[in-house]
Formats: sequence, structure tokens, C-alpha cells
Amino acid sequence: MKKTRENGRTSWKGILWNIIIIYLSSLASLYHQSSMLTFEGQKLQGVHDICSKINQLPFDKCHHLISTIDAQPASLVGGIVVFVSGSLRLTCEEHPLRFSQMFHLIPTPQGSFYVQNDIFRLNYG
Amino acid sequence: MKKTRENGRTSWKGILWNIIIIYLSSLASLYHQSSMLTFEGQKLQGVHDICSKINQLPFDKCHHLISTIDAQPASLVGGIVVFVSGSLRLTCEEHPLRFSQMFHLIPTPQGSFYVQNDIFRLNYG
Repeated sequence: MKKTRENGRTSWKGILWNIIIIYLSSLASLYHQSSMLTFEGQKLQGVHDICSKINQLPFDKCHHLISTIDAQPASLVGGIVVFVSGSLRLTCEEHPLRFSQMFHLIPTPQGSFYVQNDIFRLNYG
Repeated sequence: MKKTRENGRTSWKGILWNIIIIYLSSLASLYHQSSMLTFEGQKLQGVHDICSKINQLPFDKCHHLISTIDAQPASLVGGIVVFVSGSLRLTCEEHPLRFSQMFHLIPTPQGSFYVQNDIFRLNYG
């Protein structure tokens, strides 16, 4: 179970939880052809390349701990920016790695969201 | 002089450098009434409140080292998301603090940008 620094969940957190859950089941629906992911400096665009990259990541060997989730409305048409910080610990490693990630979510005509921008960085000295 | 992990500067980095420089001289021109800043969880909106908060920060007692700058186009109308990671060291502290920050920049009719979204977090365990 992931933890947050704050008590309770806001609607933004609900969206993010949904994203994480969808990550594990149906990645393709989260991204559009215009979507972009920058993962530790590696730039990817489009559903196929982004999903291929995420599917290569060792989520099954990695424990996520989310420390903070901040979100703001990004536009008059309903976009949202979400900023997450936390730590990752690989099962084979003693020390966790700090990370930060941002998402820019765009509403769809169907009342859902897709990820237009996704930037991930480990945060180390 | 701030350092980046990569050689050379992209146009995104140029924009960010301009932002940092403008921070020190003319904050009000960077933000609009709709702009939002979340600083370590504290939520602020509008030119007055955001500039007041930033002007209270001890930039003169703090050394910034930027490690990474990532940027992506955020919309068809010319928006940009910028994600920065690095460290801060207060002159009275031995150990630096890791931080991450994101900006969502919106183009203006005058050919410049303003900051619609600004989220800052220290990244600690």
C-alpha cells in the first residue's frame, strides 16, 4: 500500500491512484500519439514507444513509496499538472533512491484524461 | 555559475536561464493573475501572493546547483513544461538539500512566456 504525507485523499490523488492502477493493466489507454515521456533524460513519444519503455521497467522488483503529491489546474480547458516525489527501492538494494515525476493530464471528450507529458528523474547527488 | 549535467544549452535551457535571471529582477512580469505556485505544499495564486512568497526566500544565502533540466511541448498552442532537479545549500548548512521543480509556461501574444504553474519540492527521505 502506498503512503502519502497528508491525511486523506484529494480528487487529484484519486486521479493519480487511477493512473498507477491503469499503469499495471492498460497502459495504452493512458497515452495518445502526441504523448511524451522523458525518463532519466531518454525521450520517447507515442503510445507504442512509451508503453514499451514502461513495460521494460522492473516494477515487480521495485517498492514505491510516494511522499508528496501536488496538483494544479493547468488550463481553462481542464488540464491538470501533477507533481509526485517519493522513493524507490529495488529488492536487491538496501538504500532507496529518491525520485520526482510530473504528469500533464489533458481531458478527453469522454470525460477521462490522457497523459500528454510525463517526466521522471531520480534525484541523487 | 550554475552547472547542468548535459553539454551545451537547448532553447529550453535558455528559457529557464531567463526565468532565473528575471526572478532576480522583475518577478511580476513572469506571473499572471491566474498563475499558481505550490511551494513545499503551500498554495499561492496571483502575481502579488507569488512574488511576496518568492521575495521572502533566502536566495542571497543559498547556493543553487542545477543537475538536470528536461522540457517538452505541452500543447498545440505553444505551452512548455520544464522540469528541473538539483540541490540547494544554505551558507549556514554543510549538507545540500535536493530539490525538484516544475514550470508550465504559456506563450503570450507578445512572443514571451508566463508561468501558469510552478511546483517546488525538497526531496528528502
